[in-house]
Amino acid sequence: MPNKIKKIGVLTSGGDSPGMNAAIRSVVRTCAYHDIECVGIYRGYEGLMEGDFKAMDARSVKGIINKGGTILKSARSKEFRTKEGRQQAYNKLIEANVGGLVIIGGDGSFTGGLIFNQEFDFPVMGIPGTIDNDIFGTSHTLGFDTALNTVVDAIDKIRDTASSHNRLFFIEVMGRDVGHIALNTGIAGGAEEILIPEEDLGLDRLVESLNKSRKSGKTSSIVIVAEGDKIGKNIFELKDYVDENMEGYDVRVSVLGHMQRGGAPSCFDRVLASRMGVKAVESLLESKTNYMVGLLNNKIELTPLDNAIKGKTKINLELLRVSDIMST
Amino acid sequence: MPNKIKKIGVLTSGGDSPGMNAAIRSVVRTCAYHDIECVGIYRGYEGLMEGDFKAMDARSVKGIINKGGTILKSARSKEFRTKEGRQQAYNKLIEANVGGLVIIGGDGSFTGGLIFNQEFDFPVMGIPGTIDNDIFGTSHTLGFDTALNTVVDAIDKIRDTASSHNRLFFIEVMGRDVGHIALNTGIAGGAEEILIPEEDLGLDRLVESLNKSRKSGKTSSIVIVAEGDKIGKNIFELKDYVDENMEGYDVRVSVLGHMQRGGAPSCFDRVLASRMGVKAVESLLESKTNYMVGLLNNKIELTPLDNAIKGKTKINLELLRVSDIMST
Amino acid sequence: MPNKIKKIGVLTSGGDSPGMNAAIRSVVRTCAYHDIECVGIYRGYEGLMEGDFKAMDARSVKGIINKGGTILKSARSKEFRTKEGRQQAYNKLIEANVGGLVIIGGDGSFTGGLIFNQEFDFPVMGIPGTIDNDIFGTSHTLGFDTALNTVVDAIDKIRDTASSHNRLFFIEVMGRDVGHIALNTGIAGGAEEILIPEEDLGLDRLVESLNKSRKSGKTSSIVIVAEGDKIGKNIFELKDYVDENMEGYDVRVSVLGHMQRGGAPSCFDRVLASRMGVKAVESLLESKTNYMVGLLNNKIELTPLDNAIKGKTKINLELLRVSDIMST
Amino acid sequence: MPNKIKKIGVLTSGGDSPGMNAAIRSVVRTCAYHDIECVGIYRGYEGLMEGDFKAMDARSVKGIINKGGTILKSARSKEFRTKEGRQQAYNKLIEANVGGLVIIGGDGSFTGGLIFNQEFDFPVMGIPGTIDNDIFGTSHTLGFDTALNTVVDAIDKIRDTASSHNRLFFIEVMGRDVGHIALNTGIAGGAEEILIPEEDLGLDRLVESLNKSRKSGKTSSIVIVAEGDKIGKNIFELKDYVDENMEGYDVRVSVLGHMQRGGAPSCFDRVLASRMGVKAVESLLESKTNYMVGLLNNKIELTPLDNAIKGKTKINLELLRVSDIMST
Repeated sequence: MPNKIKKIGVLTSGGDSPGMNAAIRSVVRTCAYHDIECVGIYRGYEGLMEGDFKAMDARSVKGIINKGGTILKSARSKEFRTKEGRQQAYNKLIEANVGGLVIIGGDGSFTGGLIFNQEFDFPVMGIPGTIDNDIFGTSHTLGFDTALNTVVDAIDKIRDTASSHNRLFFIEVMGRDVGHIALNTGIAGGAEEILIPEEDLGLDRLVESLNKSRKSGKTSSIVIVAEGDKIGKNIFELKDYVDENMEGYDVRVSVLGHMQRGGAPSCFDRVLASRMGVKAVESLLESKTNYMVGLLNNKIELTPLDNAIKGKTKINLELLRVSDIMST
Repeated sequence: MPNKIKKIGVLTSGGDSPGMNAAIRSVVRTCAYHDIECVGIYRGYEGLMEGDFKAMDARSVKGIINKGGTILKSARSKEFRTKEGRQQAYNKLIEANVGGLVIIGGDGSFTGGLIFNQEFDFPVMGIPGTIDNDIFGTSHTLGFDTALNTVVDAIDKIRDTASSHNRLFFIEVMGRDVGHIALNTGIAGGAEEILIPEEDLGLDRLVESLNKSRKSGKTSSIVIVAEGDKIGKNIFELKDYVDENMEGYDVRVSVLGHMQRGGAPSCFDRVLASRMGVKAVESLLESKTNYMVGLLNNKIELTPLDNAIKGKTKINLELLRVSDIMST
Repeated sequence: MPNKIKKIGVLTSGGDSPGMNAAIRSVVRTCAYHDIECVGIYRGYEGLMEGDFKAMDARSVKGIINKGGTILKSARSKEFRTKEGRQQAYNKLIEANVGGLVIIGGDGSFTGGLIFNQEFDFPVMGIPGTIDNDIFGTSHTLGFDTALNTVVDAIDKIRDTASSHNRLFFIEVMGRDVGHIALNTGIAGGAEEILIPEEDLGLDRLVESLNKSRKSGKTSSIVIVAEGDKIGKNIFELKDYVDENMEGYDVRVSVLGHMQRGGAPSCFDRVLASRMGVKAVESLLESKTNYMVGLLNNKIELTPLDNAIKGKTKINLELLRVSDIMST
Repeated sequence: MPNKIKKIGVLTSGGDSPGMNAAIRSVVRTCAYHDIECVGIYRGYEGLMEGDFKAMDARSVKGIINKGGTILKSARSKEFRTKEGRQQAYNKLIEANVGGLVIIGGDGSFTGGLIFNQEFDFPVMGIPGTIDNDIFGTSHTLGFDTALNTVVDAIDKIRDTASSHNRLFFIEVMGRDVGHIALNTGIAGGAEEILIPEEDLGLDRLVESLNKSRKSGKTSSIVIVAEGDKIGKNIFELKDYVDENMEGYDVRVSVLGHMQRGGAPSCFDRVLASRMGVKAVESLLESKTNYMVGLLNNKIELTPLDNAIKGKTKINLELLRVSDIMST
């Protein structure tokens, strides 16, 4: 029988996302609620190996629910990929009397956590924090909803100037392997066309689509391009292609970049983070391990970390169709 | 066998909410996509009875997806509650060759639509537009998500000044019969306590909760109060009660009011509106009637209007518990 | 000859305003730049009397430039109005070796500072921090610009719902004695009429103005009312008056309240705060005392505290006329 | 003696900026107030030559004060640079009985207007609309204040992720020839260093500054770079330089791009636009011509167009010093 956990550690790892602080706050306060101790671990697995821990109580996480980024900071760690690194991390946890670990991050971070568990039988629980929404086992990752609003706000601004000048804009949004941000913000931003990694639209259809839109009387257009779009051209090459092959367009490019990762989390992300933190801590206290906490059909559910890592999210085909109809 | 619908009318009714314009746009463009005509009906049932219609094509709804309010305007109509009023409305629709009606509004508007259908066998389809999220058959009404972000943004601002002065704030948010806005924004805004219509917390517990929070070292506090809270005191009476019965508090009141209904819709509400509009039109084209389009488990589904009107949404008990833990 | 100052204290007093943190940061960093020490004094004159001081270096004020409120907190102090209170404050400053004081606040706070200087010959310098813009000697107080944007954002939202329902809204904004917020936001929000403390419009003209606007084809209207408007009726009485004396209006009231004091400061307020902090510290280092730092014709200038306290700001008559023309 | 003007035309030209719509609204309503006619001219000088005019009354400009972009659209015209083009434009104005022209745009647009006046003795009046604030004769161009807030909001978001990962960010903001946006947003965004066209900082000082900041304990840094910075390297070359010549930095680049031109105008820009529109129309009615309306020491003043075009704005040296002190 496992000893009852008396202290839980929490860390953030990988790319940061809005809502991570709200999740840290929730983990810390849920520990306080259940009268167990909590330590914040700085700089992800780096700080874990170095024992860069700080005791946190309910008041330590005051005033952070609305802050972007992560007060625990994040980092990517090569050393934790070695057995020695993980051994060192384990030693630090044991020394500090920590009995369970909440990992807020993406699938790379979860993989590290799973290996760590398998080697040392140390209880771990994952909370999906990334704006890309590319993790299986949850309809929404932490930060996704906030990033959508940030992107849509930027598209609205660009549309002001696009309409004033009858221009065509290619706007690049985050999403190397998945098109969730592109698809949702494309619909919400009234885009003419949306290029995503999951679907090879082909340049021909892009051209056709722009021509159709021009004929229908539109004088300005916006095309949303995910970083990893399938056409295999980057956004500047797309611009050049249109410049060379189509007449009468004044084409501009905007790469939204890192601002997509920041900002005060939306209400949705704050509530989601609060719910996930509670579930993660209480699951550890129930002696569960190797799960990711996720939102499925509006309920907080557990998915085995293994599935979360290996599973693939699917693009919502209904949204693709809606996008198509909306650009009529 | 019903004749195939060749023209669809769309109206907005009841209180307005962010996303109504995006839904109108979607209805109009889905009609265009299917090569059928569309008319916008002004001022809800008032304009329906007066024949205040305007033909709309895909270009008519350009540039409105990000606008709050409703370009078709809204109104409440007494006359439509009479048989004569509805007969007149029917005549206007037949004259204009309209074969189906999309009603964007709340349950009062749906009731009108349902009676209208029963009397004249006229096809109607509902889209739930209200910030209160009080309609059965959809996890989210149009505008709810946007209102949550508006409220949370206001709470964040008030918290700045509350913290600077060590004050207790009672903040009133919308929700006469339901506490969805209060519960979600209370969690997201880091509220000490949340008073909702569904739960009789009682003044004693409020006092106890504030005392506990004071002892735990908090110097400022926020209490979110839904308009229709169960304690049966309005927000100014609550302030007076605390002023008279508790020591050492500097209490302030803020009633957020009508700004909660406005603003550019969030990405979520724009996408939801776009999906709902497609489904509403296509359902009418499939000869369906008397349904409300809703979001259930992230899918767009139909719920009989009758159920949507009679059913009650339930407060999420898990959220109440999360709120409790977070205010540790 | 006065001893050269080696340590400066900074405090915030009175109502908080966005930009106070940016001003604190500037004071602290300017001290660091000139290699002198700096202490933050908590809760205004309360903390000054209690010796609630904290040494601050350049890193202490990291990450606060964009935060509303004041990290030093603010308070109103009765005790500091007594000779004993001020003597105690003086003792604490001398004990801590503080040689000059920067007071960020409004005219009440400056009055306290001036008396303190006169009694103990202690160098003081004022920075005008209040959203009301009611201080003589500066075209802009810290927080005024931010509050204007907050109010205008709220008016924009209310206008969405006003237009959708053809309603008349009375919106109350801050300003007990001065109408600067009302006048600027009224113009920027497209208000029909603006009621300010400086001008007795009279109910008759309000009625006339609304009637004219109605005849000109406007279906919704917004009237901005400063807290201290001259008509001598509060906003709810205004509503009742219109309800009783005018036909065909659906009148609503919204009191914006304390959210006007919070929020991330605008670019303007951050830059202004940074400039003012530099000037305040460097003026103390030049052995100046009893001045307020202000913005005059886009330059940072000194005004004797005495003038700042006694002088009155004037409403810009040109703006009144512009407002009149805009509501054509 | 000139005939009294009975109709005024208004156009927007060059790059669009937030506040242009508010200025159009003001021109139209000031005409209505003085009982003279007004026509909107589409697509700048292009529409002027084509006679693409539309009569506008007070109600035509309803609901646009808070919209970015320009409802009259903007364009750059080669043909207007020819005598024939301008002759055609003159003919169209005479045909339409237009007696004066308000040009909202930048110095290129003003040059066109001035030549036009010199050739045809046609009254013209300029309103400075550009986010760059690069026009002599006004402390603020229309859109500058809004762009500052847009940029600062983006920097705040990027700082969230920069702090979480201990990164160095180079952020490019608009300003080919002038550093006003860079300098103000750099101070407001808490930048380590600001690179502007007016000052050749040199790579050495940049390196030195970053090293100093690193030693002082800063773990993340932001450098703001104006498009036309004097170092003569573009932002990607700067990144490469630091990557190659400095150790231990994780450097990222973000180019904010066209979103800087859009968005709802700030309160300041709306009020400024309203004031400028009144002055422009009333100056034409007083038979003045060839002036630009500007803000000087918080008053609306006229500057001869010739001076506005030839004069250069100067960078505020005080701000450079403040920036230096703030990055202590």
